[in-house]
Amino acid sequence: MKIYDWFNGPYPARVRIALAEKGLLPKIEFIPVNLWTGEHKKPEFLAINYSGTLPVLELSDGTRIAECTAITQYLDSLVGEPTLTGETPVEKGLIHMMTKRAEIEFLDAVSTYFHHATPGLGPEVELYQNAEWGGRMRDKAIRGMRYFDNLLKDQPFVAGDRFSMADIAVLGGMIFASLVQLPVPDECAALRAWHARMQERPSVQTWRAMVERGVA
Amino acid sequence: MKIYDWFNGPYPARVRIALAEKGLLPKIEFIPVNLWTGEHKKPEFLAINYSGTLPVLELSDGTRIAECTAITQYLDSLVGEPTLTGETPVEKGLIHMMTKRAEIEFLDAVSTYFHHATPGLGPEVELYQNAEWGGRMRDKAIRGMRYFDNLLKDQPFVAGDRFSMADIAVLGGMIFASLVQLPVPDECAALRAWHARMQERPSVQTWRAMVERGVA
Ligand SMILES: N[C@@H](CCC(=O)N[C@@H](CS)C(=O)NCC(=O)O)C(=O)O
Ligand SMILES: N[C@@H](CCC(=O)N[C@@H](CS)C(=O)NCC(=O)O)C(=O)O
Repeated sequence: MKIYDWFNGPYPARVRIALAEKGLLPKIEFIPVNLWTGEHKKPEFLAINYSGTLPVLELSDGTRIAECTAITQYLDSLVGEPTLTGETPVEKGLIHMMTKRAEIEFLDAVSTYFHHATPGLGPEVELYQNAEWGGRMRDKAIRGMRYFDNLLKDQPFVAGDRFSMADIAVLGGMIFASLVQLPVPDECAALRAWHARMQERPSVQTWRAMVERGVA
Repeated sequence: MKIYDWFNGPYPARVRIALAEKGLLPKIEFIPVNLWTGEHKKPEFLAINYSGTLPVLELSDGTRIAECTAITQYLDSLVGEPTLTGETPVEKGLIHMMTKRAEIEFLDAVSTYFHHATPGLGPEVELYQNAEWGGRMRDKAIRGMRYFDNLLKDQPFVAGDRFSMADIAVLGGMIFASLVQLPVPDECAALRAWHARMQERPSVQTWRAMVERGVA
């Protein structure tokens, strides 16, 4: 299988961590798509993913799956127990909801802040910016951190008692927030403690080592 | 099971159509949450769904699942074959991707247009508007219609050969576009033909009859 992505992107991180959790990294060939030169907005890549975002999974028969959550669901049903997306109907529903909430209220908001209210990927890539909207999304992301902090006071993982795709989505938010230097509010102790525990997971350590190795 | 929603909302429509497809409507008690008076933004409802959006499913043990896709996945794994979200890993991945694409590139864009570049739910509910962003999202939604039109020239359904949650998501976009009088471009013949076929589905007819009955 191939993955089109960029080594230190926060969304690509989500799929790389999922791959490490599932033991699937050795099966993947990574194809770098340079975000900083806007390769993901060129016609060649838009033909691969209409939305012009990374990552995209390509199967050996050429089938392509974009969207982190869709890729994770595919990988999770491919091998082993569906440990990342849930087994019972309720688990599936709650993990799906919390993952989406992590995107809407945190990760996607940080991303919009980055692309609209900071220089983002630079003037050649960010052809349209709406700084006011970007600022709103920064505030939304900070509210999102407080929401997850509150939640994590009462439960060990984002969707309840087990690590799941929803934790990976909040991790994506933390990774993006750190890249754009959006600090976690001081009082968010439960979010910080959860984040520290996440850093001990082998999958997260593997991802970090890959980032340090760079594009290769 | 209970569903908090509003009878003619485009997102609620998605879950009502999914319920009709699964034969689950008789099991549901609908709790109206009035969008036009901003009930969904009041503290009581925000305690039910942090994101302040409809619909939300509530199980008999009090568990709550928000987000149309999460609710649909729950319902689909609850009874019968998983006809809406796919059976094989590839099917699951592709349906998930196309559903998310329908949201990002079409339905959510129409929604943002409505809330930001039209009077939306009125001045008492729309406390912040960014008309310029709303206008961008209108343009994005129209591009989205053209994308789905193109796709539907070559395949009968949004995610391939079978009706799925992805068709329901595009239907949600069409329902919202019609509510806000955003016309489908004339040349989108394949999208129109698909839409006409969708109107023949019993689930869509059931949904329409429920809308005509109103809140009760
Ligand atoms: N909804 C997509 C978003 C992916 C995404 O935004 N990826 C980033 C890379 S870290 C990207 O491609 N950004 C470029 C852009 O948004 O223009 C997903 O969940 O996979
Ligand atoms: N991501 C949510 C969005 C739901 C949504 O936007 N619902 C509309 C009702 S049709 C709503 O609550 N709008 C109010 C708002 O966005 O403030 C989902 O897929 O369920």
